[in-house]
Amino acid sequence: MIAEAVRVVSPAPVPEGLLGAFDAYETALLANDVATLDALFAPGPDTVRGDGTTLLVGHDAIAGFRSGRVVIPTRRVAGLQVRPIGDDAALVMASTEEPSNGATGLQTQLWQRLDGTWKVTAAHVTLPKKDRPVAAAHPLPAAAAPPLDPSVWRVVGAPLVAPTVSGPLDGVTLAVKDLFAVAGERLGAGNPTWLAEQAPRTTTAPAVSALLGAGAEITGIARTDEFAYSLAGQNAHYGTTPNPAVPGGIGGGSTSGPASAVALGQVEVGLGTDTAGSIRVPASYQGLVGIRTTHGAISTDGVLPLAPSFDTVGWVARAVGPALRVAEVLLPGASAVPAGSPPVRAVVLPTAEGHASPDVAAACADRRAALVGEGLLPGAEVVDLAPETLEEWFAAFRTVQAYEAWAAHGEWITAHPGALGADVGGRFAAAAAVTVAEADAARATVAEARARLREVLDGAVLVLPSSAGGAPAWGASAAAVESERAGTLRMTCLAGLAGAPAVSVPLLRTADGRPAGLCLVGAPGTDLDLLRLAATLEGAA
Amino acid sequence: MIAEAVRVVSPAPVPEGLLGAFDAYETALLANDVATLDALFAPGPDTVRGDGTTLLVGHDAIAGFRSGRVVIPTRRVAGLQVRPIGDDAALVMASTEEPSNGATGLQTQLWQRLDGTWKVTAAHVTLPKKDRPVAAAHPLPAAAAPPLDPSVWRVVGAPLVAPTVSGPLDGVTLAVKDLFAVAGERLGAGNPTWLAEQAPRTTTAPAVSALLGAGAEITGIARTDEFAYSLAGQNAHYGTTPNPAVPGGIGGGSTSGPASAVALGQVEVGLGTDTAGSIRVPASYQGLVGIRTTHGAISTDGVLPLAPSFDTVGWVARAVGPALRVAEVLLPGASAVPAGSPPVRAVVLPTAEGHASPDVAAACADRRAALVGEGLLPGAEVVDLAPETLEEWFAAFRTVQAYEAWAAHGEWITAHPGALGADVGGRFAAAAAVTVAEADAARATVAEARARLREVLDGAVLVLPSSAGGAPAWGASAAAVESERAGTLRMTCLAGLAGAPAVSVPLLRTADGRPAGLCLVGAPGTDLDLLRLAATLEGAA
Repeated sequence: MIAEAVRVVSPAPVPEGLLGAFDAYETALLANDVATLDALFAPGPDTVRGDGTTLLVGHDAIAGFRSGRVVIPTRRVAGLQVRPIGDDAALVMASTEEPSNGATGLQTQLWQRLDGTWKVTAAHVTLPKKDRPVAAAHPLPAAAAPPLDPSVWRVVGAPLVAPTVSGPLDGVTLAVKDLFAVAGERLGAGNPTWLAEQAPRTTTAPAVSALLGAGAEITGIARTDEFAYSLAGQNAHYGTTPNPAVPGGIGGGSTSGPASAVALGQVEVGLGTDTAGSIRVPASYQGLVGIRTTHGAISTDGVLPLAPSFDTVGWVARAVGPALRVAEVLLPGASAVPAGSPPVRAVVLPTAEGHASPDVAAACADRRAALVGEGLLPGAEVVDLAPETLEEWFAAFRTVQAYEAWAAHGEWITAHPGALGADVGGRFAAAAAVTVAEADAARATVAEARARLREVLDGAVLVLPSSAGGAPAWGASAAAVESERAGTLRMTCLAGLAGAPAVSVPLLRTADGRPAGLCLVGAPGTDLDLLRLAATLEGAA
Repeated sequence: MIAEAVRVVSPAPVPEGLLGAFDAYETALLANDVATLDALFAPGPDTVRGDGTTLLVGHDAIAGFRSGRVVIPTRRVAGLQVRPIGDDAALVMASTEEPSNGATGLQTQLWQRLDGTWKVTAAHVTLPKKDRPVAAAHPLPAAAAPPLDPSVWRVVGAPLVAPTVSGPLDGVTLAVKDLFAVAGERLGAGNPTWLAEQAPRTTTAPAVSALLGAGAEITGIARTDEFAYSLAGQNAHYGTTPNPAVPGGIGGGSTSGPASAVALGQVEVGLGTDTAGSIRVPASYQGLVGIRTTHGAISTDGVLPLAPSFDTVGWVARAVGPALRVAEVLLPGASAVPAGSPPVRAVVLPTAEGHASPDVAAACADRRAALVGEGLLPGAEVVDLAPETLEEWFAAFRTVQAYEAWAAHGEWITAHPGALGADVGGRFAAAAAVTVAEADAARATVAEARARLREVLDGAVLVLPSSAGGAPAWGASAAAVESERAGTLRMTCLAGLAGAPAVSVPLLRTADGRPAGLCLVGAPGTDLDLLRLAATLEGAA
């Protein structure tokens, strides 16, 4: 209770029940009692909460923020200024203090009595600065808990690698997927047996060098699914990456560590790769912005291959802004791929979209219609694709991917039986069975699909979900996970088949509130156009 | 005027005149028209304005702040959320934006119509950050907070360096002070200018190799005070290490990072060095067990020197058990220094103990009496030492330390003016002034003190506090910190002068509950005996 410890100043009598409601709020906040906090904020679309960085409007947005919040404030109320406004409203300004370091903050709330009950209708929060982890209480912790989350990171520094020079990315911190060569560091590929055999690299992958040469610094080397051959983010050796947007949900992969590091606020940008969705899927599951670039637009030198026909460099960020800043460095106007024309129409592929879960498909259709209605997306054109054609294309994609994956890693895997986790190991075992003839036939189909898709994408942007559903729960059944994966791949393979760029923007929600991405696929070379379109859509959301 | 450019959202009609008043405020703010700003804030003692750092109450206090403000905000209003409260009041939340970098802020104002005129009666301001762009974000953290505490760590891994083989230290995690060579890593010495010039080491210090060869792994390289020439743990470049045992208290140094990492439960053992107390002081301040080993018993090869006449390897742990396990690896029976006889009596040096704060001195006397009473310490013998003799010894210790520190680092420091923080820089500047003649004279005194102290320690254990007091507060006055340091050094220098081992056990408390160490100093070579005695005392506590 605040009453005893805290000085309450008010120029007029404090309305009855107000301090009790304030107390209840404080108690719930420190206990992270989300249900009570939600109940104490006024329902409806007009309730507002801001902190300078974000301004959330509507009870649902605020509740969503609260459920996704990783760190619970530890600040204590040090004093209250109450300004009653009539009998049924009062502004309450609480001076707050962080006990671990004495830093001060301020929390301003407009409380209103609605139907006899005090509710917060507006709040403005300035949290005290907390420069360091919350101090462990005495007595001292008995067992060692590592200073970094080993499911997210393999190695981190302050920084791990400093920028080469100052530039447009000054101050940008990077998590680099453990698939890129970084001079002085080993390349771990998500597998401890592989890692143990590696020597530190003597050169840095050009994509990484370009970022260091633009002022960015490497905070650390983050986890990947084994050899990037998974979309789950559930590394058998290092654990499942956390998904701060979906407590209990998997984070997605294979750019698993960089995505979680970004979502946790530990870095600004996560650099990764996308062969069949390895950027788009974790971005979709964690409510991040992600880009898979045009095939060949960014060098994959120094990047461990999975399937070179489809491998691309990509990255995730918390918003389009930083993703665009990186793109302007890695994909300058003088890119190897000529910039395409801006999209003049939106394209819908019902055959692909039909593989999304019903709630995500509906959310996608609703959002697309709204964006078209607001003039933010050009009018949507429906493109026919026979279901058996998509199946044929997807099978060809999978066959070529498997053949190339085995070509890249089969020899090492054969020499190290038992080194892989069951899931990825099984996938490689299947890949080993693909014959040259099968791969050749599949390559012909890929070429056909590529030609057809490039026609569709010419002057257009394909709009579809980034993943079939939201993040599955950690303990979801294998069947549920496989169903999600199968649906997702039938949508994500399209960009791979076309060699096209794709941007995932967190504009969708599942029926139960998990984030999912709206995916924009453009013609090869339109990467920057897609990101600028994404910025417009993000701004309107 | 805001009206055209800015979207105004309000769930009810905006009261007449409010937007005009808001406009007038904005125009005055950007023009720094203080008189108009003052007039638009409600007069009287109840008007309130806060920004997290300060909360000003009363019109006069706010006007005073405004007149003293040097920098005028340049932020622009990007959007308005208005929440009318009846006819004569409204909360206005303005999203603001810094044009130079797009950073966002928030200004919440309670406007009330007083005598027919709109006035601000309360305001909460979060200015957009000017120095660095902030990513716009949804329910995700906006600003990057590093995944490791940079005051504690320079680099960490999972692990950073794996054990060479399995052994008696299997599973033991190490924080290694950034003063030891580790192959593949740079040696940072607590100074960024120094670090920037370093190449990765090609060999590992033998003390570290021995631990890796016994099954321990290196979790990371932890911070040190600059060149280990401080007892504070307040590195001018990387920040003050946290002390989980004393919220708001400094952690102590120079083995600052390893000690905090151990206290935070992030590793089991912190490997460091102790020249004049750099293990014992952070152990004392943070309630840890710490050992400074017999001079010469453990190789200091690959360890950056401070003052080789006194430099020793040491370590901290949360309890005696793990400290003893490490000792049994690094100080086997066949140590270069022959094991001494177990102590047959406890020795008290009132001249030294008199330099402790009264509460710590009293706690030490009480604890020692209790341990003697319980038969855990042999009966205590009081040894006479003239105060002027201790002063002479301490001066000699300090002179030799300074002379050797400058010999080790003077050339580099001279070549890098301004590279050091003020505190350590000042200490090195004083060290530069020590002459060869002064050093020679001091060495003679050190030799006398060593002979005398070894007589005292023969078959005995000196029992005294590890530090003069408990951890000073971060913001303690320079005088208070210097007084604590001066008292501590007069006690810690004794082991250095004697080349003797010392173990700090967290058995004391200050009057206000901060931990402090009980220090056991034994004859050279009795390191293991001291740790076993410490285990007995710990078990009885």
